[in-house]
Amino acid sequence: MVLTLYVDYVSQPARAVGILCKVTNTPFEEKTVSLVKGEHVQKPFSDVNPFKKIPAVKDGDLLILESCAAIRYLAAKYDGSGKWYPSDLAVRCKVDEYLDWQHANTRAHGVGIYFNKILLPAMKKTEPDMEVVSKHEKEMARVEEQFASYFLASKPFITGDSPTIADLVAAVELEQPKAAGYKLAKATEEFLARVRDEIGAELYDEMHGPVRALAKGGE
Amino acid sequence: MVLTLYVDYVSQPARAVGILCKVTNTPFEEKTVSLVKGEHVQKPFSDVNPFKKIPAVKDGDLLILESCAAIRYLAAKYDGSGKWYPSDLAVRCKVDEYLDWQHANTRAHGVGIYFNKILLPAMKKTEPDMEVVSKHEKEMARVEEQFASYFLASKPFITGDSPTIADLVAAVELEQPKAAGYKLAKATEEFLARVRDEIGAELYDEMHGPVRALAKGGE
Repeated sequence: MVLTLYVDYVSQPARAVGILCKVTNTPFEEKTVSLVKGEHVQKPFSDVNPFKKIPAVKDGDLLILESCAAIRYLAAKYDGSGKWYPSDLAVRCKVDEYLDWQHANTRAHGVGIYFNKILLPAMKKTEPDMEVVSKHEKEMARVEEQFASYFLASKPFITGDSPTIADLVAAVELEQPKAAGYKLAKATEEFLARVRDEIGAELYDEMHGPVRALAKGGE
Repeated sequence: MVLTLYVDYVSQPARAVGILCKVTNTPFEEKTVSLVKGEHVQKPFSDVNPFKKIPAVKDGDLLILESCAAIRYLAAKYDGSGKWYPSDLAVRCKVDEYLDWQHANTRAHGVGIYFNKILLPAMKKTEPDMEVVSKHEKEMARVEEQFASYFLASKPFITGDSPTIADLVAAVELEQPKAAGYKLAKATEEFLARVRDEIGAELYDEMHGPVRALAKGGE
């Protein structure tokens, strides 16, 4: 059974599945689908994922097109420690709660900042629409506040002393507006530092290299 | 241990958790939080859920503020049959894949239609902005097409012959634009009929009574 990840690590969810596989020593085949080159909207990838989004994950015959579903599955199947997606129902529920919440919160506004401040101006060769950017930045401040007060609530990680896939997904999404120059709150930065420590600084920085370079105008 | 659901069945995710508990004969205490009366943004409910959204679920000390996390948890804990959230990893992954996909698809555009066509005009005493409604209707047609071709792909339900929480969440969300007069595709209507049959027509229609009445201008 071959596990294949279709990824470009400038994408937050692609980083999340990639980091999970690396940190759990899960062997996988990596197929890079360049977002900058538009490979995600062309054949052969559009035959793999009709929704034309990355990451896509294939485990033998099983195709998974949603990153949170993929990361739950990969953790449940390949993480022998059980720590990344704990099987205790109440703990797992708190992991799921964050993964569901983040779609319209951390992700929506982190993407909103990065897309409108960096990607769209680069594609259109124009200045960013700062009114739109500022709307997302205001929402991002609210997201950070709720993340700290409700999800972390003084714990190091969402479910307690050990990080789970929820923290991993949170971290990769929070790094996106940061790469675009958004100033994260101190509590958020401290959370990111804890996740980086747990994953290992070398792997964490290597996986965030492409998005940081892209935000700076390199590739 | 008391299980409490804070609900108003005009809300799709509130219907999903309510139907799951009823269909699995899970005893619960029901606390109605009226959306029309704005009770979700006031005390005492805003002390239960700082995000001021329903449903909220409390199982003993465990508070769950996201409906998809709640429905996964309730099915895993209280459904003795195991059919609503199967434990087989590959099957469960397909349930999760739909639950993740629907946030920005079925839910976003179903809500878009219902909110802009029914709720906003009712609150503002104005005519609906049909340009906005029509944008969501166009996206809804795309959602229906992808739901049929990728998620159902000729199967009666998302994972095969038996419905899961993914089908339940899909059905309650698809009923929302339908209540607002959006004409669903034939394949979507046939899917809804299958879910209604499995849940039982009486319970299904009872739970959809409030949203249908609200859409018609009653309460």
